[in-house]
Amino acid sequence: MSSFEQLIAFERETQALGQISGRLGWDQETMMPRGAALQRGEEMAAIEGVLHARRSDPRVAEWLENADAPDEVGRAQLREIRRAYERAVKVPGDLASRIARVTSEAQGKWAQARADEDVAAFLPVLQEVVALKRQEGQALAAGANVYDAMISDYEQGTTSSQIAEIFDAMRPGLVDLRARVLEKPVPMGLSGTFDEAAQMALARQIAVTFGYDLNHGRLDKAVHPFSSGSGLDVRITTRTNPLDPFNCIYSTIHEVGHAAYEQNVDRAYLLTALGRGVSMGVHESQSRIYENQIGRSRAFSGWLFGQMRDRFGDIGVTSEEAFYAAVNRVQNGYIRTESDELQYNLHIMLRFDLERALMLGDLEVSDLEAAWNDRFLADFGYSVDKPSHGCLQDVHWSVGLFGYFPTYSLGNVYAGCLHEALRRDIPDLDDHLARGDTSVATGWLREHLQQHGGLREPRETIAQAAGHDPDHVPLMSYLEEKFSTLYGV
Amino acid sequence: MSSFEQLIAFERETQALGQISGRLGWDQETMMPRGAALQRGEEMAAIEGVLHARRSDPRVAEWLENADAPDEVGRAQLREIRRAYERAVKVPGDLASRIARVTSEAQGKWAQARADEDVAAFLPVLQEVVALKRQEGQALAAGANVYDAMISDYEQGTTSSQIAEIFDAMRPGLVDLRARVLEKPVPMGLSGTFDEAAQMALARQIAVTFGYDLNHGRLDKAVHPFSSGSGLDVRITTRTNPLDPFNCIYSTIHEVGHAAYEQNVDRAYLLTALGRGVSMGVHESQSRIYENQIGRSRAFSGWLFGQMRDRFGDIGVTSEEAFYAAVNRVQNGYIRTESDELQYNLHIMLRFDLERALMLGDLEVSDLEAAWNDRFLADFGYSVDKPSHGCLQDVHWSVGLFGYFPTYSLGNVYAGCLHEALRRDIPDLDDHLARGDTSVATGWLREHLQQHGGLREPRETIAQAAGHDPDHVPLMSYLEEKFSTLYGV
Repeated sequence: MSSFEQLIAFERETQALGQISGRLGWDQETMMPRGAALQRGEEMAAIEGVLHARRSDPRVAEWLENADAPDEVGRAQLREIRRAYERAVKVPGDLASRIARVTSEAQGKWAQARADEDVAAFLPVLQEVVALKRQEGQALAAGANVYDAMISDYEQGTTSSQIAEIFDAMRPGLVDLRARVLEKPVPMGLSGTFDEAAQMALARQIAVTFGYDLNHGRLDKAVHPFSSGSGLDVRITTRTNPLDPFNCIYSTIHEVGHAAYEQNVDRAYLLTALGRGVSMGVHESQSRIYENQIGRSRAFSGWLFGQMRDRFGDIGVTSEEAFYAAVNRVQNGYIRTESDELQYNLHIMLRFDLERALMLGDLEVSDLEAAWNDRFLADFGYSVDKPSHGCLQDVHWSVGLFGYFPTYSLGNVYAGCLHEALRRDIPDLDDHLARGDTSVATGWLREHLQQHGGLREPRETIAQAAGHDPDHVPLMSYLEEKFSTLYGV
Repeated sequence: MSSFEQLIAFERETQALGQISGRLGWDQETMMPRGAALQRGEEMAAIEGVLHARRSDPRVAEWLENADAPDEVGRAQLREIRRAYERAVKVPGDLASRIARVTSEAQGKWAQARADEDVAAFLPVLQEVVALKRQEGQALAAGANVYDAMISDYEQGTTSSQIAEIFDAMRPGLVDLRARVLEKPVPMGLSGTFDEAAQMALARQIAVTFGYDLNHGRLDKAVHPFSSGSGLDVRITTRTNPLDPFNCIYSTIHEVGHAAYEQNVDRAYLLTALGRGVSMGVHESQSRIYENQIGRSRAFSGWLFGQMRDRFGDIGVTSEEAFYAAVNRVQNGYIRTESDELQYNLHIMLRFDLERALMLGDLEVSDLEAAWNDRFLADFGYSVDKPSHGCLQDVHWSVGLFGYFPTYSLGNVYAGCLHEALRRDIPDLDDHLARGDTSVATGWLREHLQQHGGLREPRETIAQAAGHDPDHVPLMSYLEEKFSTLYGV
């Protein structure tokens, strides 16, 4: 075998082991007995140790040096393998193992602290996580910006200054639109109680409607909705709330966006470095366009209204127009994942600033709750009432995800670009959506973006699909038009 | 660190990776989407490759040579690690990977063939499995008996001739007792349909009654009941049949026996070579004594009768005596796992002879169905009516388990020895069981056997608990007394 072939064969096993690690994460959130957490920590540490050893294996450097890629795909494979190798050799193996062990423990403590509304019970382990992640960031940055180094784990080729620039450009428009909208009365929401099994049945139907393949996936309940796995085994979770069926439905559509991206990557890339979504931002662009630009459109929500009336009877709103308004309610609230499209990015900006300060050493973990609460009051105009509505609401930091939050808003920006191009290419899209047929939209996304997996770099992936370099203008125009029309402002 | 300490630390990670491999097996049987089978095969091959590389790592040989065990436990650790190492270096890594890949595929094909009653669809992949397992057996045997080498994977220190000797000694008594019993009318079974969710709820209650710890385990449904995992995460499965609640209940008790053994091993052995049941035969002694000697006793079945009447109302039998007879019905049937205590070993003897012939090359896979059906007719007096009642009924061969079946009957023999000692030590056991309190029995088993895990060799484990070397006489006496009394023969 040539060096290139040896490298690809080795990488194939590494990818398979990476899938196993992901499956353990899924199990931990859905199936694992609570008392198994300690042992699971050791298991995760062991598999992460194996993965780290493989990613930093000296043979990889040798193969990379001698590998001769046969074509464009081969060159992309080498690019991605090289990136993973260069990252891996910067981080000592025992540090990676310690991070795996501590974050496994921290996740359990976070869930308990959140249930108990007890920030103090979570802070000691979060402090450990932050200290370890800063060590990792310093190793990765090699003297440069620690937080930038962490962002590049999720969105290669984007810096925190670039992100701050985009956020600064968007913020005035968002603040202005939000202020105008919140002067108006809040539209009626749904009313009644909604059987949770019936919600799950509807969620399953909608998942399939959006092209999710249950022969290569499954839908379960978990505390935090997520998508996990690549290729032939891509699983999603959602949650139910008897008073708020939209929580279940739109979490499901969101995760289907992630999962469809993974399921639709060219099968030729299965278990290779290209066989998955290229970055978190591009991933989020898929979940967001499924959830918001398609799922919360006037046309699709009209179809969904009929479905919900058929399943639940009286749902408290009685027309498609009122249902559309209910689906797009802008109102005060604490929870990022329940936030509307308009205010969502303000939640992200808060986390972006706080985690950047934590990573750069400008904020102590012991001051985190106060900093969160101060910032929330400043941005939203009212105070956090309990920790599960504040700094304990998200799982991310407990599992060591720093540099990840900003990719949510980058995803929104990318989704804006893609949506503009989709509407241009398919002028009668709404006629399809009004029949509950999303296949022209999902087919366009598969063809222009999803099938390519990791073939091109993130920005190039968006540029190829949208027809131009990503920028925030299409998203802002879309939000302005949608909400000014809906609220008459 | 000393060589001993380095070896134990290395082994700890290997054990953690082994637990991961086991969890993937559980997932495959309970949760995995069907279309993921191909990818799962690659994942299993990758983790098995890692495990094989670790087990045969040259450093292990070096550490073993220099290791100085501090005490008896340390010596036992070295004994078990040495055994695994010596086994691993005999089997080439690529053969182990191929076996993992083919058996993963074969398991799916077996399930489909069984559903379709289509032996021919299963034989080609079984042929591959048999060929690969024979290669493995030849590598392990190094010129000695191939089938003996495979048995020692499950029951170290026992040969096929020893097993044949035990089976020969038991067979006349079993044949005679069976003939006498089957001359009598078959007792009434239960009648009615039994809600499957209610069966699962009862199974869960009984599992807890028998000491199964749901904080370190979980109960799900699967095609074939099994127990999986060690230490803090030991999961079991069962199945339901609306017409036969005993199938669910006694499968659950059986698997709880396996799981309790794993859960009750001394926590000091967690993630070490001693932190699990010592052999399949000893394992089976636990599942059998839970299921049969305790679960099917007159005393415990009296309590269970009350539970079932409370939950299901009219169950078709109206007294404790009639219920006891229903629980211990001896009647003609095809399925090993549904067989009574009396005939069970005849099912095992059939499989023992056939798989020994397959492994020694005395039987072709293409002749397996005919051989099975001929032997079944000879032993049981009537013909197999469909493959799912014959050679497609068990998962074992599809996943490469050859040499495993005889350990079921060894387990029965061991259970006979343990039960005799248990009754001697606790003369009023039936008073406890009649109240549904199994804790004196399970406590005795934990103290005398389960807590020790892999500390002592299998036969020594039984001898220590029973007070004498294992033999088949106590089991035969127990069966003779129980069934001659019950049937008045």
